[in-house]
Amino acid sequence: LEQRTQPRTGIPAAELESRRGRLLEHARREGLSGYVLFDQQYIQYFTSFGFLSTERPVVFAQSAGGEMVVLVPEFEVERVRAETAFERVESYPEYPGIEHPMRILATVLADLGLRDAIGADQAGYPGILGYQGPALGEVTGSTVAPLAATIESMMVRKSESEVALIRESGRWCAHAHRLLQKFTRPGVTETEASLRAGHEATIAMLNALGDTYGGQQASSDGASAGYRGQIGRRSSWAHAIAHNIEFQAGDVLVTETSAPIWGYNAELERAMIIGAPTDEMRRLFDHTVAAQQVAFDALRPGVKCADVDGAVMRYFEDNNLLLYWRQHTGHAIGLRNHEAPFLDLGDDTPVEPGMVFTIEPGLYDATVGGFRHSDTVAVTADGIEILTDYPSDIESLTIPA
Amino acid sequence: LEQRTQPRTGIPAAELESRRGRLLEHARREGLSGYVLFDQQYIQYFTSFGFLSTERPVVFAQSAGGEMVVLVPEFEVERVRAETAFERVESYPEYPGIEHPMRILATVLADLGLRDAIGADQAGYPGILGYQGPALGEVTGSTVAPLAATIESMMVRKSESEVALIRESGRWCAHAHRLLQKFTRPGVTETEASLRAGHEATIAMLNALGDTYGGQQASSDGASAGYRGQIGRRSSWAHAIAHNIEFQAGDVLVTETSAPIWGYNAELERAMIIGAPTDEMRRLFDHTVAAQQVAFDALRPGVKCADVDGAVMRYFEDNNLLLYWRQHTGHAIGLRNHEAPFLDLGDDTPVEPGMVFTIEPGLYDATVGGFRHSDTVAVTADGIEILTDYPSDIESLTIPA
Repeated sequence: LEQRTQPRTGIPAAELESRRGRLLEHARREGLSGYVLFDQQYIQYFTSFGFLSTERPVVFAQSAGGEMVVLVPEFEVERVRAETAFERVESYPEYPGIEHPMRILATVLADLGLRDAIGADQAGYPGILGYQGPALGEVTGSTVAPLAATIESMMVRKSESEVALIRESGRWCAHAHRLLQKFTRPGVTETEASLRAGHEATIAMLNALGDTYGGQQASSDGASAGYRGQIGRRSSWAHAIAHNIEFQAGDVLVTETSAPIWGYNAELERAMIIGAPTDEMRRLFDHTVAAQQVAFDALRPGVKCADVDGAVMRYFEDNNLLLYWRQHTGHAIGLRNHEAPFLDLGDDTPVEPGMVFTIEPGLYDATVGGFRHSDTVAVTADGIEILTDYPSDIESLTIPA
Repeated sequence: LEQRTQPRTGIPAAELESRRGRLLEHARREGLSGYVLFDQQYIQYFTSFGFLSTERPVVFAQSAGGEMVVLVPEFEVERVRAETAFERVESYPEYPGIEHPMRILATVLADLGLRDAIGADQAGYPGILGYQGPALGEVTGSTVAPLAATIESMMVRKSESEVALIRESGRWCAHAHRLLQKFTRPGVTETEASLRAGHEATIAMLNALGDTYGGQQASSDGASAGYRGQIGRRSSWAHAIAHNIEFQAGDVLVTETSAPIWGYNAELERAMIIGAPTDEMRRLFDHTVAAQQVAFDALRPGVKCADVDGAVMRYFEDNNLLLYWRQHTGHAIGLRNHEAPFLDLGDDTPVEPGMVFTIEPGLYDATVGGFRHSDTVAVTADGIEILTDYPSDIESLTIPA
């Protein structure tokens, strides 16, 4: 068994320890006896532990003194011992069970020395897939201090390791997109093109990442590229849904891709056109490319998120394009494929080095179509690094009819 | 555009209206001026409206007098007008925006006549993908009465239309599983087999459902069948994760499938063996099949959920199998792929006609492997109907080595 795979973390163990150290430092400063995490992605962020999140709670806790424990359903115990570095693994038989998992958690936490004041990412286990249960404060009798804002403030600035994983994700998004573009032809449906692209890209990605890659959950997880119904005039609906539409000459298309690497996401999207673009398509397409450049130029440490969206809005206004505006410039991205802050007129968060954003201003016209390129960028000390590398010009993105 | 697809609901409009009528009746009885829904699947349940759920709130509300409104981000307005029957569509420019969407919602609700006491499925929009915002009570100044328990009590008993969609889902799960079984051979990886099965099954399913099917969201959505790492001795880990493992003779496998039809899910899983089963594999396999039959026989209106799990536990105890026990007998299923109630010793919910459950007792041994068949059943007036049709015997589920 051990020879078949050698699970390794994508983020170095020392970095995970340093993240936990920062959270512990905060907890101690607040006079807390330790902290408890219920959220799957927070647990992944602090421990790299990957699991299927269901109505059965998985809980990670650390005492102010540094001792760690993970609480899982009984059937996870053997896997956790084999695939993770957790020294202390506690379990409950089942959910809901004769004794509720939160009651068992209370005993585990008491034994770990968590009492009086405990930090937690939320009041209790979230109501996933039919879960119901008492709050942490109720089962422990302790005061529960919220930690989500502190955790989010850590996650928003990505480390070099995190940016490296997002960069790798961007490479596979681009690979999947090249295949999608190749398979997108008149007479083919959006479903056929995207299934084929995802199939081939995932095999290529897993082969390239090798045996030590452990970022899958389902066996079909990997790289994908496709559409979500933004085909023809439906391309003007920024969040359309798919209808297995057959491509035809004259269609404007907007794509989407995904390739989480150890959970970390880049985003790459392109507007494409099947057959010769009309003048009006070309006009909106070229303005979309230009608006993206405006955002690239505006994004740097020290400005506010709203400033970047404001620069794009000024470009639209100066070019009489406000009529075609439908969505803000972008959002942060990382372990979640959308995160705060947002490149939006209403978000005054200061931009800092290490933040990673999508840059995706779009123009939408109900008769011509919708145009949106999305790229992922990391904020550096004095500007940005673009993490997704794919052509943006109309010639490269015109598909033969 | 209109000729390419004719979006239709999977649940008849009259049934959706009747669902809303029941919720309104409850609201009026409680003296509420109307109700508000934030949860994506609750909105789907009461309106069949399908959309991509993100940090941008989508909210449905109905006044005690029956007037409906949907609040969406600006870029959804044209699609909602084209693809849904909503007469009143309100919008906000963006999230977070200069004016928070919840403030705009408050104005919309006031105009609809919702005041003083309002029912809602939750306190506000949930914290999806970086969303933050004020609670409904805060922005409206009204008392907010929780409705989730009432809604769940409606959703737990499925109608004939719902059972029909779950039955159709079961057909496509079985089709995908036949392909998965065909593609699972020594030397092939779990990823290759599942991608190929999902690819072919999705194309077949969409072709069969025809142009009026509108249950996709992404273009690659359809039917899938695969593994989640339960291969070889890892099959004894009930919730393993995939590692692109290559199949080899002697492997015990546990599969999973998915094929939501207009959002409704069946679940079909099988234990399989590559090459001639050992005696010990055969023993655990056959007991798994027998335990499933015990549950089929025990499930009927009038018993409690715990009774069904109890019957399986007694079978395990009588046959000295408790050592191999890791999980309860099953869970309800519908618009969510796990729902309450649970066929679990700790769940005393009475079984009623119209409830739909997975039946999936399993046996797990760290050296032999894990064995679990999951089938989906609807509770009828006097027993059950099995909605998934796939062989369960060891001969049918042995793969040539």
